[in-house]
Amino acid sequence: MNLSEVGEFGLLRRLGLLEASPPPGPVVGPGDDTAALPLEGGFLLCTADALVEGVHFRRGWGRPEDLGFKTLAVNVSDVAAMGGTPWAFTLTLSAPPALPVAWIEGLYRGLREACRTFGCQMVGGDTTSARDVTLSLALLGRTDRPVLRRGARPGDDVYVSGAPGESAAGLALLRCGRSGRFPELVRRHLRPEPRLELGRSLGETGAATAMIDVSDGLLQDLGHLLRASRVGAELWVERIPLTTRLQQAARELGHGVLDWVLAGGEDYELLFTCPPPARRQVQTLARAAAVPVWRIGCIVEGSSAHLLHRGRPWGESVAGYDHFRKPGP
Amino acid sequence: MNLSEVGEFGLLRRLGLLEASPPPGPVVGPGDDTAALPLEGGFLLCTADALVEGVHFRRGWGRPEDLGFKTLAVNVSDVAAMGGTPWAFTLTLSAPPALPVAWIEGLYRGLREACRTFGCQMVGGDTTSARDVTLSLALLGRTDRPVLRRGARPGDDVYVSGAPGESAAGLALLRCGRSGRFPELVRRHLRPEPRLELGRSLGETGAATAMIDVSDGLLQDLGHLLRASRVGAELWVERIPLTTRLQQAARELGHGVLDWVLAGGEDYELLFTCPPPARRQVQTLARAAAVPVWRIGCIVEGSSAHLLHRGRPWGESVAGYDHFRKPGP
Repeated sequence: MNLSEVGEFGLLRRLGLLEASPPPGPVVGPGDDTAALPLEGGFLLCTADALVEGVHFRRGWGRPEDLGFKTLAVNVSDVAAMGGTPWAFTLTLSAPPALPVAWIEGLYRGLREACRTFGCQMVGGDTTSARDVTLSLALLGRTDRPVLRRGARPGDDVYVSGAPGESAAGLALLRCGRSGRFPELVRRHLRPEPRLELGRSLGETGAATAMIDVSDGLLQDLGHLLRASRVGAELWVERIPLTTRLQQAARELGHGVLDWVLAGGEDYELLFTCPPPARRQVQTLARAAAVPVWRIGCIVEGSSAHLLHRGRPWGESVAGYDHFRKPGP
Repeated sequence: MNLSEVGEFGLLRRLGLLEASPPPGPVVGPGDDTAALPLEGGFLLCTADALVEGVHFRRGWGRPEDLGFKTLAVNVSDVAAMGGTPWAFTLTLSAPPALPVAWIEGLYRGLREACRTFGCQMVGGDTTSARDVTLSLALLGRTDRPVLRRGARPGDDVYVSGAPGESAAGLALLRCGRSGRFPELVRRHLRPEPRLELGRSLGETGAATAMIDVSDGLLQDLGHLLRASRVGAELWVERIPLTTRLQQAARELGHGVLDWVLAGGEDYELLFTCPPPARRQVQTLARAAAVPVWRIGCIVEGSSAHLLHRGRPWGESVAGYDHFRKPGP
């Protein structure tokens, strides 16, 4: 049996890595957006995410500056989903010996810009040769009170931030060589903006009962949140945000727009739940963070997500991204 | 200009990653064995080290259990060199989809054994597909008082622990397909034992003025310590430990034994300096940790290492390991 047969989550399940560790140990271990280790006066958040050439990116798709920025941004998104503040990181760079030094210098320029944007610093790492470029970043963050995936309760509202699906559309445009048509969509893929301020304010105010960042597709990440909370959800398809440019790109490429939105991946938006009395507060926090948020459903008893369109069951089959089952770029 | 032309340390210098960051920031940034971030009641240590298939290992060379153990052990060695205690880590596993799941399960068995041995826990990570297996681990540790590279002073003794060179000999035996002849040397390469207890006691007692782990070759790592401390050293070649099995392997393979010892790499021994009044204490700590330590030289004014053989200059040219300049396994 090989990896492609069991898939990414099948592997994690076999290795016992999907369940949080019991105490004594981290408050949250593998299985949330980050681990949360108790620390004097709060929690230390730890997360790691890698970008691999030929899997997550092609060097020809964009500037190394954007890739450097993205390498930190995708990890900051995990800290944001815990309601935390990024602090420090290590970066392991694997690269072929023939790689131009100018490319790596561009990568580090982007990384430094991300450090300034997100207020954190590189404190170490490793460099090694390899056939493909791999950027493996481990980020530490801090928070007084982590927002976990497991706090959603029946009756809670379900929200998503920003414009899920745009990153997947950008990736599709890059793959078919039409990146010039919709530069904003391509930029959303190459240089995602994690919702750090929104996540932090949802955590600090206690408004969010559960939160996750959308990296594997909205439906798959909602599934993680539901399983951790042991609840189900109704998702109102007509409420899901669809930007004009996203709909245009879907028409031009003959692609289902909801496929990108529900199962696209690499959105780095926040998916979170709040009790109904917090509705006004949520909109206030979203305005303060300059990020739109959309109420797209509600938590119910049960164990799965039901898609409804204007109150009626909506049956399109969608799935999230699995690293060992789908082809790379 | 490409990576192979500037080399690993040339790249780090160009990126400004060889100097410690000025305050406010980490007490030590890139440029020591680990970063040291001030934390209530002590310091948080952060380090990252990757093992790449085709560069650091071949899958056919040994059991996945040993590779899993080694992945944590090489990072623990960095924490040991700071006088710290390992705490928690994230692991990013990149692997080709055709990789047998049983191999990965073996890898995690070895990793769990290392967790028990070194008293730390895996708290998260990432899995992604890639052409080659890459294990990228980021380890956190803690200490009240980190032992830095920069504390060596003229007059200090220079010590090395254990048996440097044995790992390089084991690698040479694996490369030429003669691993059955000297299984202990091969084991030293496949399953290194970081000197955690020795490093911790040298730190806690304040006996060591500077310390580094030997991963790129004794001479190269001594060079890092000397540059950080702005001092030079005399190294007494006749005092450098040479085990019988190491000398036998060198004879059988027609290899210079001191080449392995001085420039081999992946030793994961500790190289440290102590003032002469601490000599008795150093031997007591070494006995308690069940690791031999060897006084192989002394710190002098200056900026480089001078090799002496029975008091006379000894001129053999040796160099450490550079990831972008030497061929892989």
